[in-house]
Amino acid sequence: MKVPQALTDLIESFERLPGIGPKTAQRLAYYLLHVPQAQLSDFAKSLENLKKNTLLCSICKNVSEGDPCSVCTDSNRDREKIMVVEHPLDTLAIEKTSKYKGLYHVLHGAINPLEDIGPDEIFIKELLLRIKDWDKGIREVIIATNPNMEGDATAMYIARLIRNSGVEVKISRLGMGIPTGADLEYADEMTLTQAIEGRRQM
Amino acid sequence: MKVPQALTDLIESFERLPGIGPKTAQRLAYYLLHVPQAQLSDFAKSLENLKKNTLLCSICKNVSEGDPCSVCTDSNRDREKIMVVEHPLDTLAIEKTSKYKGLYHVLHGAINPLEDIGPDEIFIKELLLRIKDWDKGIREVIIATNPNMEGDATAMYIARLIRNSGVEVKISRLGMGIPTGADLEYADEMTLTQAIEGRRQM
Repeated sequence: MKVPQALTDLIESFERLPGIGPKTAQRLAYYLLHVPQAQLSDFAKSLENLKKNTLLCSICKNVSEGDPCSVCTDSNRDREKIMVVEHPLDTLAIEKTSKYKGLYHVLHGAINPLEDIGPDEIFIKELLLRIKDWDKGIREVIIATNPNMEGDATAMYIARLIRNSGVEVKISRLGMGIPTGADLEYADEMTLTQAIEGRRQM
Repeated sequence: MKVPQALTDLIESFERLPGIGPKTAQRLAYYLLHVPQAQLSDFAKSLENLKKNTLLCSICKNVSEGDPCSVCTDSNRDREKIMVVEHPLDTLAIEKTSKYKGLYHVLHGAINPLEDIGPDEIFIKELLLRIKDWDKGIREVIIATNPNMEGDATAMYIARLIRNSGVEVKISRLGMGIPTGADLEYADEMTLTQAIEGRRQM
């Protein structure tokens, strides 16, 4: 039996996406056969235009429509704080809390020697430049890299770099501990250790 | 913070797919930002052309590049058997076994009163026409609808229709029972009942 080329092409495109295996790719492609052509064309257009209509903000390196991005140009934001995150999606998660009104800096990764990603492969240099030269008003750098080995290494590297640069800013890191709604019983030792060390007076 | 329109458009397109929630859609869209434009364009092209370059075979109703499809025109296939399946993907699953060399008939659904899908909404009439008028050589109709309520109802409906039509063909249904590799302990009662009723001499 010969599967139409148009279908195998689409299945292959879906299979290249992270977390989508051959079975899911097949299911999605066959599902789309029942969808109106207009919806398919919209989908195709948004893929085609994704990179054409976005760029990285030259200041914070977040994905943006214009340069500088809407956060970097927003005069209502607290210009004394920079939060350093690994990925653009992390800024969305932080924004959802409505608890942070400062600026961002997106590294686009974390230091990972196993995958050959050193400090020069991510936007660390640009962060230093920002603190030292461009944004003289910065008072606090909040390092919000992921709480894993790569994120920890990146956080420590950045903290040392800022201290050595002679710029006087407060450096902090997101609190670590038990997430809301979790069960103490199932928390791993590392998380509990962090929670004990990071305990707060009531 | 304003997420670029190009990104929200793509996220929305992904969210419309079955089994893809808002978080996964976001993750996929942001992932594609790091992919070469050529790959994005290929993906877009395969979506745009999916329906333009495929059609339903006028005989078996399977998705095909040409009409009739490669199975219906293949003289090496056993033209005495038709296997009736619900969806085009089902034919791929059967083909993988290499155990079946006959023809197919794709219903594109199953009878489902709760969703207002009656016998006229799926290609049952066309199956009857095939058996009665076009493919006079058919000796066996193997009903391979899914072993659930809708598939069972559809199977019974089709069997009755064929018997009432006066055409003399053998009507069979795929064997039901415990799947290979499963644990007897965890099998549900319905499956075990089917397995006992369908036991075979060794």
